[in-house]
Parts: sequence; structure tokens; C-alpha cells
Amino acid sequence: MTTFGKTLRNRVKRLPERAAYDRETIYRILDEALICHVGIAVENQPFVIPMIHARRQDSLLMHGATSSRLLRHIQAGNPICVTTTILDGLVVARGVFHNSMNYRSVVLFGVGHILSDPQSKNEALFTLTERVMPGRWDDSRLPTRKELRATTIIELPIESATAKMRMGGPKDDAEDYAGDWWAGVIPIQQSYLPPQPDPKLGREMEAPPYLKNYKR
Amino acid sequence: MTTFGKTLRNRVKRLPERAAYDRETIYRILDEALICHVGIAVENQPFVIPMIHARRQDSLLMHGATSSRLLRHIQAGNPICVTTTILDGLVVARGVFHNSMNYRSVVLFGVGHILSDPQSKNEALFTLTERVMPGRWDDSRLPTRKELRATTIIELPIESATAKMRMGGPKDDAEDYAGDWWAGVIPIQQSYLPPQPDPKLGREMEAPPYLKNYKR
Repeated sequence: MTTFGKTLRNRVKRLPERAAYDRETIYRILDEALICHVGIAVENQPFVIPMIHARRQDSLLMHGATSSRLLRHIQAGNPICVTTTILDGLVVARGVFHNSMNYRSVVLFGVGHILSDPQSKNEALFTLTERVMPGRWDDSRLPTRKELRATTIIELPIESATAKMRMGGPKDDAEDYAGDWWAGVIPIQQSYLPPQPDPKLGREMEAPPYLKNYKR
Repeated sequence: MTTFGKTLRNRVKRLPERAAYDRETIYRILDEALICHVGIAVENQPFVIPMIHARRQDSLLMHGATSSRLLRHIQAGNPICVTTTILDGLVVARGVFHNSMNYRSVVLFGVGHILSDPQSKNEALFTLTERVMPGRWDDSRLPTRKELRATTIIELPIESATAKMRMGGPKDDAEDYAGDWWAGVIPIQQSYLPPQPDPKLGREMEAPPYLKNYKR
């Protein structure tokens, strides 16, 4: 199945021309973004929590400060919503009303579960580590049994998802193009600066190649 | 009141040493971040929506693709949760278990309302525009009555809030410092590239100074 079905839950009603439902588009955004925002509903109160995520096939693995509230919520089989947004630019229009941002976002839905056995947690940590820093796993001290016990990882099979994007320049009213206002886009990029060594390194060491020119 | 009270809703239980409840810290993060993630709960189903925000004193103004679901939710007086996260770095530890990210996030709670009169909407658009691009309002075609009618803005008096942050280098296990693994931080920055003019500009124009060296 290469696209997610449109349902009441994931269908974009506002500016539907910006929406995409195909896995390729959705997964590309998920894979580029470093963090996501996880929403839960406890009775009528929503909570939104930032977490690190990694996609593994059609599931999302998530890792972060896991409150007991979030754990209970997931263990009880409640649905969650995960949203991630990459900002690509400030869109400067002639008319204030048409100012906008270029972005790529994904909203996805599913019922998560907590990984419990050490082997699954170890595999998930491998996926998360390699997704954030490819090459790092084999150049690290690997997790111990005790650390795996202390690790909480949420696995979320992706039931339903939507991407929403805006790209390109401003779209102004026809009569405003004759005006003397500058218009255009200020591109936004996430940049990764040169690695800063831990002052506690035992000897002078160059950062490994897989970290030196880090980009996504 | 310079700090938000700790309640069951906003108290950080996991890694409480990373939490802050003072307005100065919380507002500084809110003011730097360009977008936020708004969480609502419709029956048991959470939804998380990216929006542009601007703080005005102790309230948050939010603007974005406003679905009828979000509108109904807010108009019915339901609580919302708004979270924003700024990523500052990848923390590369010797032990996989200690890998982390440096970040500054804010989670806040309140009951929002939709601005209805044109004057309030115009003032909110002013605040949003000037917050994102200081100097732009006076160099734009200002909103018409019709545009103000088509604008949806949420105002959220901030009832309760928490900041959560991590900064600095990796914290490894004592025995791992003797190992031969590189460790440190890859700093992350949001960068703003030189403004790209709209190809539809009527004449060659330099970008105005307030956009040329855009930063936050």
C-alpha cells in the first residue's frame, strides 16, 4: 500500500492542495526530522511532548523523557497523534494577509505500545542511534542489561498519516504586484556546526568522519 | 507573578532538574521559536497541529491552517496544550544510553478563544507580523476588512507553563571516560539564508535591511 487512505481523522480540509497521503512523501519528511511532538489526551486535557523518533518500516520508534502519564496512556491502548514539522522558509508577501511559511509537516495516528524485552529495546536503540548519527553504534559503548531496563521506548505502528507542505514564493493579490514592496522568501536551514569535543576526552582526538560533516 | 505555580498538570516529574517555571526563561524560549505545536483532545483522540505563534504579554496569539475541528474545540471552551521546542545540539556520549539532545522546550496550558472583531484581528496580525519579521508591517500592504474577516486567530491566555532544557556536554558513566570513544556535541542552529526575491518583482529591488541579515 503506497498511500494512506483518507479518513475523517487524517483528511486535510483546510488548503487540501497542500496535502499528500503517499508513503514516500510522508516517510521522507519523517526521516529528515530529528524530533517530533507527541500528543495524548487524558480525559479532556491534551498534552504535547517533544520526543526523538526513528521510523522502522511502517512504525515509529520514540524515545524521550517518558512521564508516567504518557506511559499509562499508551499502556491503556489509547490513540496518540505524532506531528513533526520542518521549517523551510519565511514567505514575505506584499500583503500582510499573504505572509506565510514554507514547511513540510507530517501528522500521524496510531495506538502505540511500550517495548518490554531487552532485545527489542536494544534493536530500537540501534535504529534510533543510527538514524540520528549513522555510524555511531559501532563506535560506542553499547547498552548494558541494566541500561536497557532503564530505557523506555514507544513503538507506534503508523495507522494513518498525512503530509502537508507549502513551498515556493508568495502568492499576492493581482493588483499588489504593481506595488513597490519587496517580496520573496528567506530560506531556513537547520545547520550543524563542527563537533565540539568533550573537555573530558582523555587525549586530543579528532571527531570521527561520520560526525565531522554532519548533515541530514 | 514571575513564576508559574507547579501543579499536577505542568510539574515535570522526569528529570526535574531540567525544568524551569519562571516567566523569563519560558518567554525567552517562546519568543525565539517561530512555530509551536498545538494539541487538542476530541473525545479520546488527540490532534497536534503546527501553528505560528507570537506572545503578547501573558497571552499567545496563534495563526495557521485552522480546521473546523480546532475551531469548534476552542469555541467550546476546551483546554489546549501548546508546545514548542528549539533544538540546540546532538549530544554524542561514549555510551549509547547517554546519547541525548540539547534543547529548550516550553509546554503551556490554557483555554483559548477565537478573536472575532476586525480591530483585534488587525492588532494580532500586527503582533504576529512584527514578531516574525520586525519592520515588515510598515512596509506591507495592510489587511483589508475582507481579509480580516477571512483571518482566524486564536488567543490563549497562558494559565500554566513549564520550560524544560538540556545543555552542555555528555554525561557518561565514570568508567567510560577512560575509553577511546570520541564524545562531545554537534551544535545545531536554525540558519536564515539571504533573501530570495520573488521573480515577479516589478523591478530589480534589494531586500530591505530588516530582512537582509535576518536572525532571531
